[in-house]
Parts: sequence; structure tokens; C-alpha cells
Amino acid sequence: MEPSPLYRQLAVHYLDAIRAGSLKPGDKLPSLRSLTRLHSISLSTALQLCRTMEGEGWVEARDRSGYFVRRPRRLAIAAMEEPAAHVAPDPAQYVGIHAKVSEFVARRRQGEVRIDFSLARGAPELYPAQALQTIMMRLLRQRPALLTTAAPSRSLTPLREAAARRGMRAGMTLAPDEVLSTNGCIEALNLALRAVAQPGDTVAVESPTFYGLLQVLESLGMRAVEIPTSPQTGLSVEALEMALEAYDNIKAVVVVPHLQNPLGSVMPDAHKQRLVALCEQHGVALIEDDTYSELLDSDTPARAIKSWDRTGNVIHCASLHKILAPGMRLGWISAGRWHARVEMLKYTQTRSNEELSQWTAGEYMATGAFDRHLRRLRERLREQRERTTDAIAAHFPPGTRLNLPPGGLQLWVELPDRLSSMTVFDRALREGILVAPGALFSNSSRFDHYLRINCGWPFTDAIESGLRRLGEIACESGAVRMAA
Amino acid sequence: MEPSPLYRQLAVHYLDAIRAGSLKPGDKLPSLRSLTRLHSISLSTALQLCRTMEGEGWVEARDRSGYFVRRPRRLAIAAMEEPAAHVAPDPAQYVGIHAKVSEFVARRRQGEVRIDFSLARGAPELYPAQALQTIMMRLLRQRPALLTTAAPSRSLTPLREAAARRGMRAGMTLAPDEVLSTNGCIEALNLALRAVAQPGDTVAVESPTFYGLLQVLESLGMRAVEIPTSPQTGLSVEALEMALEAYDNIKAVVVVPHLQNPLGSVMPDAHKQRLVALCEQHGVALIEDDTYSELLDSDTPARAIKSWDRTGNVIHCASLHKILAPGMRLGWISAGRWHARVEMLKYTQTRSNEELSQWTAGEYMATGAFDRHLRRLRERLREQRERTTDAIAAHFPPGTRLNLPPGGLQLWVELPDRLSSMTVFDRALREGILVAPGALFSNSSRFDHYLRINCGWPFTDAIESGLRRLGEIACESGAVRMAA
Ligand SMILES: Cc1ncc(COP(=O)(O)O)c(C=O)c1O
Ligand SMILES: Cc1ncc(COP(=O)(O)O)c(C=O)c1O
Repeated sequence: MEPSPLYRQLAVHYLDAIRAGSLKPGDKLPSLRSLTRLHSISLSTALQLCRTMEGEGWVEARDRSGYFVRRPRRLAIAAMEEPAAHVAPDPAQYVGIHAKVSEFVARRRQGEVRIDFSLARGAPELYPAQALQTIMMRLLRQRPALLTTAAPSRSLTPLREAAARRGMRAGMTLAPDEVLSTNGCIEALNLALRAVAQPGDTVAVESPTFYGLLQVLESLGMRAVEIPTSPQTGLSVEALEMALEAYDNIKAVVVVPHLQNPLGSVMPDAHKQRLVALCEQHGVALIEDDTYSELLDSDTPARAIKSWDRTGNVIHCASLHKILAPGMRLGWISAGRWHARVEMLKYTQTRSNEELSQWTAGEYMATGAFDRHLRRLRERLREQRERTTDAIAAHFPPGTRLNLPPGGLQLWVELPDRLSSMTVFDRALREGILVAPGALFSNSSRFDHYLRINCGWPFTDAIESGLRRLGEIACESGAVRMAA
Repeated sequence: MEPSPLYRQLAVHYLDAIRAGSLKPGDKLPSLRSLTRLHSISLSTALQLCRTMEGEGWVEARDRSGYFVRRPRRLAIAAMEEPAAHVAPDPAQYVGIHAKVSEFVARRRQGEVRIDFSLARGAPELYPAQALQTIMMRLLRQRPALLTTAAPSRSLTPLREAAARRGMRAGMTLAPDEVLSTNGCIEALNLALRAVAQPGDTVAVESPTFYGLLQVLESLGMRAVEIPTSPQTGLSVEALEMALEAYDNIKAVVVVPHLQNPLGSVMPDAHKQRLVALCEQHGVALIEDDTYSELLDSDTPARAIKSWDRTGNVIHCASLHKILAPGMRLGWISAGRWHARVEMLKYTQTRSNEELSQWTAGEYMATGAFDRHLRRLRERLREQRERTTDAIAAHFPPGTRLNLPPGGLQLWVELPDRLSSMTVFDRALREGILVAPGALFSNSSRFDHYLRINCGWPFTDAIESGLRRLGEIACESGAVRMAA
């Protein structure tokens, strides 16, 4: 990466001060003249600095008296309510998400999409293509036979080693041969569920949850029981406990402890610990989907649920898809006491993953570049999330709610007055704007007035105006409904 | 590849004459003196030519009178009997192959393997690593963002285009968007079976069949009914018909029409056609596993079963694993009327395959190099199969039977007197020689006295002596049993 220009570096400096609270809303920035002296910069650089910060919404110019720190719009938006966790969850149902998803896909195909807020995905330029390319080209030069040699089923690739090392940081003690490479986290989840449950069995999931998981359950003929989940602290362990007591056919629980999709919630360590004990006690397998941990704003690694596991009852699933290389299908699974069964299922389902991509990613992860990349990625995602939230605060109808999550690449938005997100979806699509309607995130209709909005794209004018238009469409849809 | 030395080129020339029948067993080669004149070569080159052909078993020196074409040993080996096809197949059973396979794997891990005849796999040097490497490096240079861009789920990669083109040669009319890329043929088979059948349903399979398929059925909780299959003409359509009439819960039939694994059988076109009609008439899905077609000795492409399909009832599955790039996990599926369901299952199971490898393989397949590679590969495999068969004919106990298949990379060998192949397996493993015992190829015990022997490795002295030792072990095991 090129070093950023001087005014950008200074903007980051002032931004840090605002974030840290040493400059508060209402405070005045140093005058242009003071800025030139303070930082030994030209007047035009000082001006560029102030204009940039203004453009990005951090400060506002007041008539003749200078630039003042603004109260970020996003602070004005209300947080969501906590779900009621003291009633037993609804009984398990067979999942019927394919029909909803197919309808969504079919409608999407009719429209011409200009701006896609529907995915949970980072822009390609957020990831280190060049560095990965360099490693892969070196491997190809040195070992072209990687392409023509079948991967030995037990070879300890650098990816498996890297996964074990990352696991250590998250408090797990894993040997590389306890980790199996998979085609992304989605294959890991398939294997985990096939290992611990049969068609007809019930699986407890967070509510809302990402439709990918509901699709897996439906395709495996499993039933889902949806457990209330807090936008702040994730799965309600009490509600799960009630479900386990009310229904005796629950074979597994699937949780995303960090930056849950779509909520962005993060489970406190005490909850994780209680969850491990609860599942153990009820003989229910605990499947941890760790797709997003590395996108948490903090530099201190979060502790994996599996780090409390003493009996092999926790299956840990992870992926590089959101954090390193969206163009490679790489994930992994540590299946605890189901290791042998998962190994057999993996062999039977797709055979061992290709070696070349495992070596490429694994070698990159063995260098300091990986953590440097992650820090930069988190920083950029934070900016994109904040600016997206500001735009939502500015343009969405009053009463819109969201929780600004401490990391990740998406926002979960509650529309006011139970406004149907399908209506918003349809109208937006006519204008080439795609969003993910809340209906996709549950087998119930509880989230039909929610939207999930991707913040993975760099925040450009096009994104900004897309969000503005989306807000207007939501306002119009609300007005139309009120009038009706 | 370097051009081969003169004596080698001449050896190939004489070999062709022997194969074509213009030189017959018992015929005399030209004398050394005539050879020098005929080909304008030195006496030492002529001598090298004759010694090479002698060493490889094509000619034998007779005292002072010159070199004579030998009757290849393999012609002395008897063909297998045809299976009885006029009795209804045994009722369907849940497959219990995992236990057998685990035992096999566990035993294998105890031994130190020097020579592996157990796989169905070609040696890396039989495949065009260099050419694939060149293409992949160019793609990486031109489009590094392939690594960091998630594959759009419907992108028409060169692999899908190449698969459709190859399909045309085999008589199928397929558009690229009717072909989905998969992680090898094994994922294609998983998807096909999940699309057309449920756990508990019955699937008709060839008997014997490769244990990979039996594992898939077991892992999906499906039952198998084993249909007698001819070592020459493959699946018995009459026996299948009887099974369809006797049992009404058969949802699908899986067949490998060309170079069936392990038999090496090839279905005549008339059988394929009857099979299509029969399945259609009974409302049973027909799954065609086309992994080996391109390894048929003939340069004329074999007609795919799906080429007779008019109603979308045939699902065609294929792979590059044995024919182009064992180090890449690439296959594809054309699922006929189940296309949408298979597309959904594929997304749910592993998401779209990575683009980079699809582009690499697809671009290679779009050049003439692909067919040139296939011709060379077939030629080498033919030589390896013939020499392996000669060695078996020379060293295995009398009464050993096999059919020399018209292509492919393996031989299916019947030991005499129902000699247990597990005994041979165990003894051979003690000496570092691994074979695949017949018990793995059926849910029954019908093939317990068979072995499958891989011919994918270049025929070296080590391979030759491995086969000799294997033959001795089989003889000893037989003798021990006789004495007991
Ligand atoms: C929580 C969660 N788990 C798993 C996945 C699938 O991940 P992968 O692309 O690694 O298969 C996703 C992707 O959307 C996700 O959000
Ligand atoms: C008949 C047959 N089908 C499918 C497969 C699996 O192929 P792939 O490696 O492409 O998944 C094999 C491999 O042994 C096979 O013999």
C-alpha cells in the first residue's frame, strides 16, 4: 500500500482524538493558522484536512468561527429492544427457507442490480491479493506437481498448522491433525451437523440467524428451534435452557459467538462458559461458528467457546472467506469427539481440499503480514460501518433502530411500525438497489420488518446516495401504508 | 517432454507392428545386421533395440538364431465368468462399508507402505503439470483479484464451457449453464443422490462397485441393492429390470458406463439405450458416473448415457481427477430436471467452486493440448496395464483370472479357489505392498477373493518385483490353506 497523503494521516490523528474522547462533540478544531504552525504544514494542506473531515461528517464549519466536532449522527439512532428470553421458545419446525430464498433469488434476477447491500461480503480490495498471488506463484514455480498430485488425506498442510496456531490465540489447545480443512465454513457446518444429528432431529439456532444455516438444516431434513438472541450479548442461554427442558429431541446447538450474522452481537465470556456446561449436561452437541471473530474491533483475540471444552463436546468451525480471501474456498473444523466421523464424512462428501490453496493461505498466515492485514481490515470496516450508520441515521424514517456492532461487515436494521422489508426490498430493487429482507433470517415472521445491510464496500458517493435512496424508499413505503 | 532416444522410437515402431498383428507371436525380428541397414543405425543401437524389447517381454532371444516375437503372457490368463443375471438381485440393505473401510485404513496405517497398488490413481508425471502451471501463473499475473473476489454463483467459467463442449463430443446437448462445477465427481454424486432420494430410500448400484459410492450411500443413510454386473458389458439391464419389478422403493440407479471401477467394463450402446428407457418407464432417476470415459483406448468418444435422455431423467457426473489434474478438485454435474435442486444443494453444501482452478483447467481444455495429453495418457496407461497383466500372468497362482479392460488405470483380479484377498492383503502389507481387497467393493462377501490392482504408476523394476512378490504371496497363501 502507498503511504497516505499528509492531510489523510492528520485526519486519522484527529479522528483518533475524537474517538478516544479527547475531542468531544462541540469542541472547536484548532484554527487553520494554528494547524499550519502545529503540524508545520501549508495553509492548503490545513484546509484539505478540515474539508476532508467535514466531508466525512466528523466536523462542521460554523460561519466564520471555524470547524467544530460534530455529534455523529449515528449516536442519535436508538438501540434495539432485547428479546423476551423468559418464555419457552416455539416448538421446533421443519425449515422452509428454500421457498423464501428461491423467491428472493428469482426477484433479484429480474432486476438490474447497481448497488448490492444484500451480501455479507467485503470488497476484493480489502484483501491482500498481491501478497497471496506472490506466494502462490512461488509455490507453482517450485512445486508445479501440486496440481497433478492427489492430496494425501492426512497431510499436515500449512493451513492446518495455521488454524491450530490461531486456535491457541483464542484459548484452544489444538494440534494441526485435529483440524480438517474444508470448503469454507459452510462445508464445516454441514459436516458438523451430519456428524451429530440425523434427518428429523432438532437443532437449536439463534433467532435471527443467517439463512445459509437455515438452508443447511432444510437440505438435511432437520428441524430448527429458534432461540431468542440479544443484539448485544447473543444467544440467550436461559431461553436455550428452557428449550432443552421443554423439548427432548434437540441434538445440537449452533452459535456464532462473535459478530453474529445478522445481529453483530458478541457473547460475554460468562455466557459462553455457561453454554458449554449446559450443552454438556444435556448431552447436546455444541457447534461454534467462528466465521467473524477476527473482525472484532479489538486487537485482543476473543476467547473461543471451544476453549472451555473439556470433553470434546464442542465442534469449532471457521473460515478465511470473510477475513483473508473471498476468492478461495477455505475453512476448517475441529470436531472434538466427532473427529473420526467428520473425517470420514469429509472424505465421502468432497475428498481432501486441494493442497495449493491450503499452502498459499497457510504460508501467508504464518507471517506477520496476516495480523497487519487484519488490523487494517478492521479499521476500514469500522469506518465503513460508522459512515453507513450515519447515513441510515440521516435518511431512514424516524423510529428506525440499530445496534452499532463492535466489528464485522454488516448492520441489522429494524424499520419502524413493523414496516414490511419485502415492500422496501421490491421498491429498492426496481431502482437497482439490493438489500437482504429480514424474512430470510428466520423460519418465523418475527423479523419481517428488518433489513440486513452490507458495509463491506468502501464508502463512496454511490454507496452514500444508495443509502439515501433506500431511506427515502422506506419513508415512502411507510407513508403509503399509513395513508392506506 | 524430451524426444525419446532412437532405439526407443524404433521399439515403439515394432511394438505397433506387433499390436496391429503385422508381426505375430513366433515371427522373427529382422537380424541385427538387417536392422542396421533397414534403419541406418549402428550395430550397438540395433542391439539396444532388441535388448529393450526383450527386457519388456515383447520378444525372446533364441540360441544363435535371433529374436522372436513372444506370445504375450497376458494372453494366457483366463477371462472371468459372467455373473448370473437371471435371478432377482438380493433385497436392498443398508450399507455397512464404513466399518470395513476403517478396518482397512487402520491396518494400512500400521504398515509401512513401499508400493501402493490400492488406489485408482495415475502417477503425477502422467499429467501436464507444466502446462497447467503456465496457465495458472498467467491468470494470477493478470487477475490477482481472483483470489480475493467471491465467485459469483452463476458465472460461466471456462470449465463449465469446456464441460459442455466435451459433452457434445459424447452426444449430449448441454449449454454451459446446465453444467455446475463441483469438488470432483464425488461431490457430484453426493448432490445427485441428495437431489433424487431421501434417507431410507433404495439405490441400485453395480456389483462390484467402488467403495467411494458405497460410502456415500451409507453416509446418506440410503440402502443399496446390488445389481449383477458383467466384467465385459457392465450393468446387467435384465437384472436391474427384475430388481425394479421385485422392489418398489428404488429411487435411483448409479452406473459407470465406461471403464467401471473396479471391473473396467464398458456398456454397449444398445444396453445404455435400454437402460435409459427402463429407468424412464419406472420413474427411477438414472445417475451416470462418467469419471473414466476419456481413458478409453479409442480416440472416438464414447456416447454418454445422457445422450439418449429426452426427459431430463439422467444426471451426468464427471471429473478431471483421473484425466487431467489429480491435484485439483474439479468435477461437474448436469442434473437434467433436478438442475435447480442440485444448484441449491451445491450452494448449501460448499458454495460455488473457486474460480482460479476452474479458469486454469477450462483454458487448458480449450486448447488442442488437452486431446494430445489424453492420447499420450491412454497410450501410457495401455502399456502399464499390459505389462502389469503380463506380470500377473507370470507370477500369480494358476487359475487367476482377469479381463484386460480397454482403457483405464486398474485391473480387477480374481484369485483361484476363493482364496481370501484379506489374507493376501495382510501378508503383502507386512512386506510394504498395499492392495485393495475385493471385500471393499460390495456390501456382500461375493468378491472376497478379488483384488483391485492400480496400473497408474510407470512400470518400473520396483513395480515389477512388487507384482512378483504379490503373486508369490498369493501362491503361498493358497498353499497354506490347502495344507490346513
Ligand atoms: C455466520 C456464517 N457462517 C458461515 C458462513 C459461510 O461461510 P463460508 O463462506 O466460509 O462457507 C457465513 C457466510 O455468510 C456466515 O455468515
Ligand atoms: C467411478 C468413480 N467415480 C467417482 C470417483 C471420485 O472421483 P473424484 O476424485 O473426481 O471425486 C472415483 C474415484 O475413485 C471413481 O472411481
